[in-house]
Amino acid sequence: MPNKKISIGLFGFGCVGQGLYDVLNESQGLQASIEKICVRDKSKKRRLDAGRFTYDKKDILNRKDLDVVVELISDTDAAFEIVSTAMKNGVNVVSASKEMLAKNFAELFKLQQQHKVSLIYEGSVGGSIPILRNLEEYYDNELLQNVRAILNGTCNYIVTRMELEGKDYGEILKDAQANGFAEADPWLDVSGCDAKYKILLISVHAFGILLKPDQILNLGIQNIRYEDILYAKEKNLRIKLISRSEKIGDKYRVFVMPHFIDKSTELFNVMYEYNAVEVEGAFSCKQTFTGKGAGSHPTGSAVLSDISALTYNYRYGYKKLKKFMNGNGIIPDATKSLDIDFNIKVYVRFSNKSEIEKLEIVSIEEEYKSAKNNYIIATVNFKSLFHFCGNKDSKVFICAI
Amino acid sequence: MPNKKISIGLFGFGCVGQGLYDVLNESQGLQASIEKICVRDKSKKRRLDAGRFTYDKKDILNRKDLDVVVELISDTDAAFEIVSTAMKNGVNVVSASKEMLAKNFAELFKLQQQHKVSLIYEGSVGGSIPILRNLEEYYDNELLQNVRAILNGTCNYIVTRMELEGKDYGEILKDAQANGFAEADPWLDVSGCDAKYKILLISVHAFGILLKPDQILNLGIQNIRYEDILYAKEKNLRIKLISRSEKIGDKYRVFVMPHFIDKSTELFNVMYEYNAVEVEGAFSCKQTFTGKGAGSHPTGSAVLSDISALTYNYRYGYKKLKKFMNGNGIIPDATKSLDIDFNIKVYVRFSNKSEIEKLEIVSIEEEYKSAKNNYIIATVNFKSLFHFCGNKDSKVFICAI
Repeated sequence: MPNKKISIGLFGFGCVGQGLYDVLNESQGLQASIEKICVRDKSKKRRLDAGRFTYDKKDILNRKDLDVVVELISDTDAAFEIVSTAMKNGVNVVSASKEMLAKNFAELFKLQQQHKVSLIYEGSVGGSIPILRNLEEYYDNELLQNVRAILNGTCNYIVTRMELEGKDYGEILKDAQANGFAEADPWLDVSGCDAKYKILLISVHAFGILLKPDQILNLGIQNIRYEDILYAKEKNLRIKLISRSEKIGDKYRVFVMPHFIDKSTELFNVMYEYNAVEVEGAFSCKQTFTGKGAGSHPTGSAVLSDISALTYNYRYGYKKLKKFMNGNGIIPDATKSLDIDFNIKVYVRFSNKSEIEKLEIVSIEEEYKSAKNNYIIATVNFKSLFHFCGNKDSKVFICAI
Repeated sequence: MPNKKISIGLFGFGCVGQGLYDVLNESQGLQASIEKICVRDKSKKRRLDAGRFTYDKKDILNRKDLDVVVELISDTDAAFEIVSTAMKNGVNVVSASKEMLAKNFAELFKLQQQHKVSLIYEGSVGGSIPILRNLEEYYDNELLQNVRAILNGTCNYIVTRMELEGKDYGEILKDAQANGFAEADPWLDVSGCDAKYKILLISVHAFGILLKPDQILNLGIQNIRYEDILYAKEKNLRIKLISRSEKIGDKYRVFVMPHFIDKSTELFNVMYEYNAVEVEGAFSCKQTFTGKGAGSHPTGSAVLSDISALTYNYRYGYKKLKKFMNGNGIIPDATKSLDIDFNIKVYVRFSNKSEIEKLEIVSIEEEYKSAKNNYIIATVNFKSLFHFCGNKDSKVFICAI
């Protein structure tokens, strides 16, 4: 293991970028320095000298003396451009951009093989929780059965406060935005999109299947009301946005939606901005990894850990993914492995029936009507839930039971 | 990563050995076969053909065609003999014998360097929880502050059932023995000894300090009564046997003892035979790993994961340990880094004062006397607790607050 000093070119100096800077400054074990930081906004006041920054990505990408490019920006297209250029130049990359990774995975995988470089991205999923490397290395030969996880800190923060404070969604969301726990435009988080990108990456490392983002159902918490929380509470349940990736025979079910969960699972006790990943294997039984899922320093320390891993030439082995590849180097289309044709029991709260006419209801178990709202407890065809996925107009709240 | 078939020589075919056999049989990713199994008892009926077994360790140790020796026996001296011989022969070893590892660590470390072999032992701590490798690799450059863990499944099983069923220690212990959750001689577990060996190994990988077992205080649950549990319950607390390894400035505090813990920590919800390890870093904040801490298949799958890691030449880097070594290859005496001279607040339940006369009491906060028992809530000098460590005659129950 060479103990040389690592030279870093950093893209982005927002929340995570600054977190990385702090963590790196305090780190004792790793000899590393950020040589240059590329940012977009010239007018923004920064906490470091102007000389540390550049506004031209070429100032980093064209340098020959850097060991690693760390990409921590929010613009997905720009992130892909940066990451792929660095890889083509033969430079190892650490990234925390889940959306970019999820949308361009096949291409990024190919570039890793072609240019013999390493791309690692632990910070993109579960903040400081070391889940991807554990799935890749530790659960390598374990007969993994399923992964169930709370992967979005914003959603968990909102439902936790709604429950504990007895307040409605809008009020808590506003407060969360004021306190830095939700973005000005919260859609990516509350719609379950962010969690979807993460479960896509988890599915690659857990099961070796690569899906496209639009193959994965994401129902979010954007339509939740306090009355839904109360319904759960009366039954000693909690509502959590759960991301699932499960093996059922030869098929896989991968989706994100709110779930009623009970005390018997560890996920019940995961509150506020915490994330948790429950991994179940045929032999290891259930194991749960819990930690802060977001935030400047926790994510910064995950990124630092990736940088550190590069010092001993770590790269994801993608052993499970490669098993499906038959040696031709092309990741197979996982569509035929994906099971979306099954029935699932759900709680559906709506105002009038027209809102749920696209739902393929198999059977209704309970039906509740009042002046204020209606709900049904029903078994529905999973596929028909896609009508509500990413639908900004729908006001229906759907929760798995 | 070579994909050749791995030949295993196995020592021990008890609970974990049989678990490994099952897990290996079902494993898809790993090409491995157990070539020979060395056991002690000729008279015991085995589930496999007699031809699979040998009673002479040389039948494994003298073979030149084995890739790995897996040591899963209970006799500590015999285990050390086997493991060190295999290493001297240049064979990689996987072991789950925490007592053997803790008692012979310096020697085993030296053998790894001298003979350029790998000794890995994830199965020795926390059953299926991948804690050592994470401490070693993932938290490499994280400013780790402390590790607090539930590491003994037997103790946690007993206190859980005492609390939930309102029964006394003796009754639950008997039942636990009948159900396979406690040994016929439970001392190693209930005294906190087993947990001590594990926190010793954790301290090596978390902080790079190697202690001797007798430098680590272990107070167990052997003297617990239902009234102690009730005392905790009335205050919304639980009693758990907690192993701690903490950095305080330049010093370390490492000890095992029962603790009253409250709802705010994840450890509160860890019940029955489950283990959990809480890792706190300056930047990553608290992270918790939870899973089955013992049992045939969970531990077997941890052992399998170690075997699998050997296929890509994994070995512990011991980066933190090596930092203290100044290049001379000798692990320094950690005694001077160990802090045992501090005050700690405890609950002490006893029958009469003579039982606790060796306790150096700094101040007493509460005192309770009754015909049945007495307790005090006091601040005591930590060092004086060693008088009660491993003391089979003492009936005093001591619990940190």
